Amino acid sequence: MSGFFDKLYSHTVAGLRPSPIREMFHLIRKPGIISFAGGMPDPEIFPVDLFYEAAGILKTQGRDVLQYGTTEGYPPLKEFLRTWTAPRMGRTVEDEEILITAGSSQVSDLLCWSLVDPGDLILIEDPSFLGVFLNMHNHGADFLTVPCDADGMMVDRIPELVESAQRQGRKVKLCYTIANFHNPLGCTLSLQRRKKLLEYAHRYGFAVLEDDPYGYVRFDGEHLPTLFSLDDQGVVVYGGSFSKILAPGTRVGWCAGNREIIRKMAVFKQGVDVCASLVAQALVYEYCRLGHLDGFLPRIVDHYRKKRDAMEAAMRRHLPLEEVSWVKPQGGFFCWAQTKSLDADTLFLKAVEKKVAFVPGKAFYPKQDGGQNALRLCFTFASAEQTEEGMSRLGQAMREMLPG
Amino acid sequence: MSGFFDKLYSHTVAGLRPSPIREMFHLIRKPGIISFAGGMPDPEIFPVDLFYEAAGILKTQGRDVLQYGTTEGYPPLKEFLRTWTAPRMGRTVEDEEILITAGSSQVSDLLCWSLVDPGDLILIEDPSFLGVFLNMHNHGADFLTVPCDADGMMVDRIPELVESAQRQGRKVKLCYTIANFHNPLGCTLSLQRRKKLLEYAHRYGFAVLEDDPYGYVRFDGEHLPTLFSLDDQGVVVYGGSFSKILAPGTRVGWCAGNREIIRKMAVFKQGVDVCASLVAQALVYEYCRLGHLDGFLPRIVDHYRKKRDAMEAAMRRHLPLEEVSWVKPQGGFFCWAQTKSLDADTLFLKAVEKKVAFVPGKAFYPKQDGGQNALRLCFTFASAEQTEEGMSRLGQAMREMLPG
Repeated sequence: MSGFFDKLYSHTVAGLRPSPIREMFHLIRKPGIISFAGGMPDPEIFPVDLFYEAAGILKTQGRDVLQYGTTEGYPPLKEFLRTWTAPRMGRTVEDEEILITAGSSQVSDLLCWSLVDPGDLILIEDPSFLGVFLNMHNHGADFLTVPCDADGMMVDRIPELVESAQRQGRKVKLCYTIANFHNPLGCTLSLQRRKKLLEYAHRYGFAVLEDDPYGYVRFDGEHLPTLFSLDDQGVVVYGGSFSKILAPGTRVGWCAGNREIIRKMAVFKQGVDVCASLVAQALVYEYCRLGHLDGFLPRIVDHYRKKRDAMEAAMRRHLPLEEVSWVKPQGGFFCWAQTKSLDADTLFLKAVEKKVAFVPGKAFYPKQDGGQNALRLCFTFASAEQTEEGMSRLGQAMREMLPG
Repeated sequence: MSGFFDKLYSHTVAGLRPSPIREMFHLIRKPGIISFAGGMPDPEIFPVDLFYEAAGILKTQGRDVLQYGTTEGYPPLKEFLRTWTAPRMGRTVEDEEILITAGSSQVSDLLCWSLVDPGDLILIEDPSFLGVFLNMHNHGADFLTVPCDADGMMVDRIPELVESAQRQGRKVKLCYTIANFHNPLGCTLSLQRRKKLLEYAHRYGFAVLEDDPYGYVRFDGEHLPTLFSLDDQGVVVYGGSFSKILAPGTRVGWCAGNREIIRKMAVFKQGVDVCASLVAQALVYEYCRLGHLDGFLPRIVDHYRKKRDAMEAAMRRHLPLEEVSWVKPQGGFFCWAQTKSLDADTLFLKAVEKKVAFVPGKAFYPKQDGGQNALRLCFTFASAEQTEEGMSRLGQAMREMLPG
């Protein structure tokens, strides 16, 4: 009976924002298309044999890892992460401060369950990661958007935004930040701004979700201290993921935070999906235990550094430099190209005709009010040859849109 | 900073009902305790070697299955399920009618996202499965509880409940039913009542969630037609799971339903966790493709039939039959023991002293208003020897509480 459910849908469905990317990806599933669109790892650098080696745990520990797991996560994996993350966390976090999740997307979902009532406000980089802010929107959150420059979120805007909201009786619950190698911008929050952001969080009493899927994928320079490690008051929840440092097909992520919030998130997780796939957690654990995470990660980083360099060189060669500018990312997956005047939606259609794809910037603006002239380019997926050819096609598409 | 999050919690947290089972399980983690409490499969019957054999797919298809998957599920697994479920679904469902989920718990979570606004009503068996109704409660649902007898939900109560709610301007969105081998009751909804339930769903315009994790674990008699197969109007969402027919550590479940609701659920799933672990889905698929699901399932069913029989025999031998009654379950994991006068919470503490555990019935009542004298006994986990000894201890505990 078509339309049966129309009468039953929740208000959330009425307010659902269709993901523009979802529709777009139908357009670009064409043979021969070179894609800088999806934020996907390169399957060529997946450690297939090493991961298969880890599958031995399904035999040796099968009776344990085929059973239900505790909601908090597979204990050996939690134990591994406590030690492994210590250099970035600034200390060895306690067992009660870690929750294993179904990828780092779920960190945001569970934190919203715990914190967000309809109408609550979330401070967010403008632009930001679509998947997370659509979920936040579904939880009823509204956004206070903070613009970014090459040093990340312009945190000095926060006091005015928060105070103005508070004057209107609104609650600012959370600041969501991708501090390292931002998606989609590629920028990294400076140390000074990290400290400032925490100062504001403490002053105004909001929590911080530090979403760090790309943190370990740094090509140049030194790691900056995480917000989690700089925070002496336990207001930061740090979200990590194996998607970029091992493989996204595991769907294993984690978060670290104040034990009271971790406990609340676990209560929600129990109702949502009981626990992350124990089979997947065990495979990831065994891969780590065998030393492959530390052994293989440098190869992943090298691989993507070369790809970043290949894309940057191709951009310099093929794009109209009087029209396009970008900041070279020091890590992560993305380069954000800002044009002076090109309409990115029009350019997208023209590019797809020429068999090259990207994501128009508009998709990443929580309030759908920016990015008309910008492009997100993912440099990790296409091969060096594809990147060269794809950038040449993109440059042609841009030039055809320019006057004269 | 202890207490930091107290000021930030959502209203949902304020209304969170702590799971009584969570606390209880701390009490029963003692050496030597025989547990009829958790609803866990017997690890002795996990197909460890066959599942390990399936891990070959991580090598042969590694570059595919370590990548992000589509939200709707791993296409080969969806294709397998279309065919495999056809006898129970009454037809081969379409690809767009299936969504792969993180266990069948997530089916309910995603359906609530799609349908439930705070204050909406859900018809539910009284008692029912705790994990699901706590999640529904978190989504803001209230419950219209329907009592059960040996033939399952007493569906004749539905018209009065729904009409009375509608007179008060309330919306009844959904009926949640575990029609086969109910958790915790062990009963099965009769064919006549299945038809009646659908008649009411069509008349009053509510959807039906048919949660069927135990459906394939039938010991005696013939399978009854699923509600999904009896429904000619597309109002039923059927939830299935590999937890009981393969192993829960996979956390792979699925649902089948009207394509419009499946599409909506997928949109929410994308924000919640992107997709179910593709690694886990691929392992499950390969296990199925190798013929092990069909090959091994009869052994699982035989194994649990023997355990059901062992528990029933031990109950007859050791429990005070003038005080305790039960209906022999035809499948599933649970037997519900109703006592005339024993307070199950007091009995629980006494039983734990004697090193045997069960779940007091109260935990399963959505409105916390029943089950004071009842026990849920899981017969799948403990060995036959443990069951004999455990039931002897439980009988002693009961007798100590009886007068004279």
